[in-house]
Order: sequence, then structure tokens, then C-alpha cells
Amino acid sequence: MKKMTAAFQGERGAFSEEAARKLIGPDVTVVPCQRFEEIFQAVASKKVDAAVVPIENTLHGSIHENYDHLLRFQLPIVAETNLRIVHNLITPKKTKFKEIRRVYSHPVALNQCLKFFAENPQIEKVQFYDTAGSVKHLVENPEPGAAAIASSVAAEFYGAHIVKRSIEDDRENFTRFFLLQRKALPSPAARKGDWKTTIVFNLKNVPGALFRAMSVFALRDISLSKIESRPLRGKPWEYHFYVDFLQHVEDENAQKALGHLGEFAQSVHVLGCYPRGA
Amino acid sequence: MKKMTAAFQGERGAFSEEAARKLIGPDVTVVPCQRFEEIFQAVASKKVDAAVVPIENTLHGSIHENYDHLLRFQLPIVAETNLRIVHNLITPKKTKFKEIRRVYSHPVALNQCLKFFAENPQIEKVQFYDTAGSVKHLVENPEPGAAAIASSVAAEFYGAHIVKRSIEDDRENFTRFFLLQRKALPSPAARKGDWKTTIVFNLKNVPGALFRAMSVFALRDISLSKIESRPLRGKPWEYHFYVDFLQHVEDENAQKALGHLGEFAQSVHVLGCYPRGA
Repeated sequence: MKKMTAAFQGERGAFSEEAARKLIGPDVTVVPCQRFEEIFQAVASKKVDAAVVPIENTLHGSIHENYDHLLRFQLPIVAETNLRIVHNLITPKKTKFKEIRRVYSHPVALNQCLKFFAENPQIEKVQFYDTAGSVKHLVENPEPGAAAIASSVAAEFYGAHIVKRSIEDDRENFTRFFLLQRKALPSPAARKGDWKTTIVFNLKNVPGALFRAMSVFALRDISLSKIESRPLRGKPWEYHFYVDFLQHVEDENAQKALGHLGEFAQSVHVLGCYPRGA
Repeated sequence: MKKMTAAFQGERGAFSEEAARKLIGPDVTVVPCQRFEEIFQAVASKKVDAAVVPIENTLHGSIHENYDHLLRFQLPIVAETNLRIVHNLITPKKTKFKEIRRVYSHPVALNQCLKFFAENPQIEKVQFYDTAGSVKHLVENPEPGAAAIASSVAAEFYGAHIVKRSIEDDRENFTRFFLLQRKALPSPAARKGDWKTTIVFNLKNVPGALFRAMSVFALRDISLSKIESRPLRGKPWEYHFYVDFLQHVEDENAQKALGHLGEFAQSVHVLGCYPRGA
């Protein structure tokens, strides 16, 4: 069987690669891209089978650019997963912790390990463009006393050594990823487990519009797990609303809710229906 | 009378400085800061009288970092304004358009003038850290054939020359700014004109929670103009909701709506009440 190919943003060993393995399996062939837009284009143009896209982080919030791409490309979401972001201290070769004087990583990762740096004032922070890229850089350009902060997948991929595991300040640091393909999942014959549906809609700018939109779900006991607003281009101060609800899109009450929403929304698109992630 | 001082993020001549003049008047003494957090700190520590903070752009969406700072610092919003973002082609000295070969600016500004670059393929884009900063750089380091893209305030401040006005692709490009001070506006004796109130709340994670929150406004005919969600630290997949509504916070129905919201919300904070911007 041909291995599935999946595009992701970042260097080999990025957290997105870890998410790709979780979503597709250890045999996935990953295709790193520089920009988020490229990973959507890679699926749309059939260069790869799937894309792995971060959509939301529990500390930093939504990755808004990807919400815009979801609407523009309309590649169906077929799965989601929540990945715990674990930052590890990594050196090219086995190194004693006390020898480390400088740590390279992406500014966001450095900022998520402030307690570690406060407890180890002898260690200097050095900003780098990418977490996994900082491991790659040190493996290719060894530098005595230098380490990187990145995922365990990065350490494994570049044959580097983990000196300390899990040095992040906050363990409630998760990123939610979507798996996108060109075709939506087929409707399962008997639906087991929990499903989630992601939609995007926009409303006439009239009083109570969002309340009415919420009511089509609440009055049918459909739970929402997320709402996100994004500006509507060309219509200042109007918005697209992205909503996740906990129901299969083909369930009767979901169909009725979407029909009801369609009675007054200016547009409604289903972006995907997928099993709820752990 | 002592001139009012206002902190903003960016170099002198930034769009935020233009907003500061619009919000406070041409006599404002502006204090440029490098990071958004610093402008909140400057007001809280009484280093300046006010802060001018961009909160939302009609093309790019909310500036989410500033939503987080609004909650953390709770400096009251006392005014808002919408500034049209006009990008101008600027040279240190009077220059003929046909002599220009390179244009420096912030990547976002360069990307908002793509039609201009498509129509003028002889001109190269050069990324710089700041729009107004690119004018400053060229004035200090003149370079034949080089221009910058920035606000007219930047051209004026650095004594530079506008070669072409308004070269942006999309004229529906506005940024909304808040004026923050240490004290909320006093309640006007007779309320004339339109007022807006910004609040932030969070809800128990139960089905229909957001619908109920919207209902406290809708059932009292209070219009919402904006809703924004941000992650709640330490509680993965729960959110703060920031809502703007079109009513003075002391109006009877607004007070009743906030009381009603308080019956089931886990927290409700009023971030400011201010005259509605044009």
C-alpha cells in the first residue's frame, strides 16, 4: 500500500510532524513547507494527500491565518487531535547539563520556559526562527555549551540527545491540529462515538443576529465547543463566524439547525465533520 | 495647561501616532515604545497620561495580544477611533517616480500594496521592521533609487517627501484604536450621542452557555458590535469572551443585562464605556 503523504509547516521534527504521526500513523511521509498557505496549496494541487494544520493553542489562542485558509480552500477537515506541547532541552551530542551556557529556540518556546531560565541564570537565551530548526542548526554547526529547545521528535530526527525533558512552565499547553484532505469522510453506517462539525457563516449586521444564530443550536440542545470571529474583507466591522458543534453534520437535529441558520444567514459552509479528538 | 502624554507602540510617525492625534488632539506629546506591553505599563506606572492601542484591523482581524493586556491591566477605555490606513510612497528628498527602484517597508504594508508592485515591476520590495522606521532609515542613510511606504505623519515627522499618495490595494483598510487612561470617564449628566461599552466575561463550560450570555443582551434589545474569544490560561479549551455593546454602561437596560449575566457567568468585568467612534 502506498504511504500517505502529508504537508506541514516548519522544519522536520516540528510539533506539526508529531501531530502528523498522531493523526495518520508512524508510516506517514511528511512534506515540510515554509508557509501555511503552501500546505493548503499542496493538498489542493494534489502534490500531497493531506495537510496537518495547527488551529488553536491553549495559551496563545487561535492561529487566525489558518481560519482564513480553511474558508478560502474549503478542504474538508477529516480529523482533529490535541497535542501536548512538551519542550525538551536538546544537545547534538551527549552533554552534561552544567556545561550548557546558551539555548537556541523560537521566541515563543523560550518564553514558555521562563521558570527554567530563572532557575538557571548561567544559561543565556538565543532567539532562532524555529524550534526544530534550532536542533538542525546545532547538529550542522556544533558549538560547545549550546543547546536547543524543541520536541522529542526533533531530537530523534536529527540524532540529537535529550538532556532534560519537559522544561516548559505550563503543562496545560496543548495545540489542536486539523487533518485536511480533498474529500470529506464518508458517512459511517452506524455512528459510534462523538463527532464534531466545523462550520463558517456570516450574518446581516442587524441587532440580535448572533443571538439568533446561537439559538438554532441551543434550542435543539446542540453544544458548541468553539466560536471564532474573523473580519469580512470589503465589509469593515462585519465578521465571519467559525463555530464547532458536538454533533455529526448528518444527524437530524444538526441538519435542522443548519437549515434554520440558512433561513437568515448570508452564507453557511460546512468545513468538515470528524471524530472528536481525545 | 500641561500637554497630555500618550504612549504608543512603534517609531515616531507610526499609524498609532496618527491615531493619538485624532484621539487627543494635535498637541499631544507622544512617547514611542517598542512593545505593546510597555505602553500599558507606562500608563499603569503613571509615566504617561494615556495609551493609544490598536485593537482591530478590518483586513487582518483583532490584535489579540492587546485583548489579553486589556484584561490584565484593566486600564479603562475612554475613547475609540477608526483610522483609515493610507500607504504613501515616500522618499527622503524630492525624487521622480521613475527613478525609484527599491521600496522599504514592513511586510504587512508591502503586502497591502501588491497592485502597485504588479503595475511597477521595475520596483523591488525590501522588508523592514517598521513602516515609519523605513522612512527614518532612508532619511538617515540616503540611498539613490530607494523609497519607503508609510503614513503621511511619518513623511511629515522626518521631513521627507510624498511621491505618490494612497498606493494601498484596498481602501476598506481601517484600524480601530482605543484610548486608555487610569480613570474611567465620568458619567455625563445628560447622555447625548451613541455610547459603546466593552466587557469581558467567562462562562461555565456547559451546553448553551454562550446562547444564554447573548440572550441577556438580545432580550433587552441591546446590540452587540463585536465578540472575540481568547483562551483561558490553565483551563484548556475554555475561553474569555470580549463583547462590545452599543449602550452606555449606566443605562438601565445595560445594568440589568450585566446583572443578569452575572447570575451565571463566572466573572464579568467592564473594560470601558466611551463615545462611539465615527
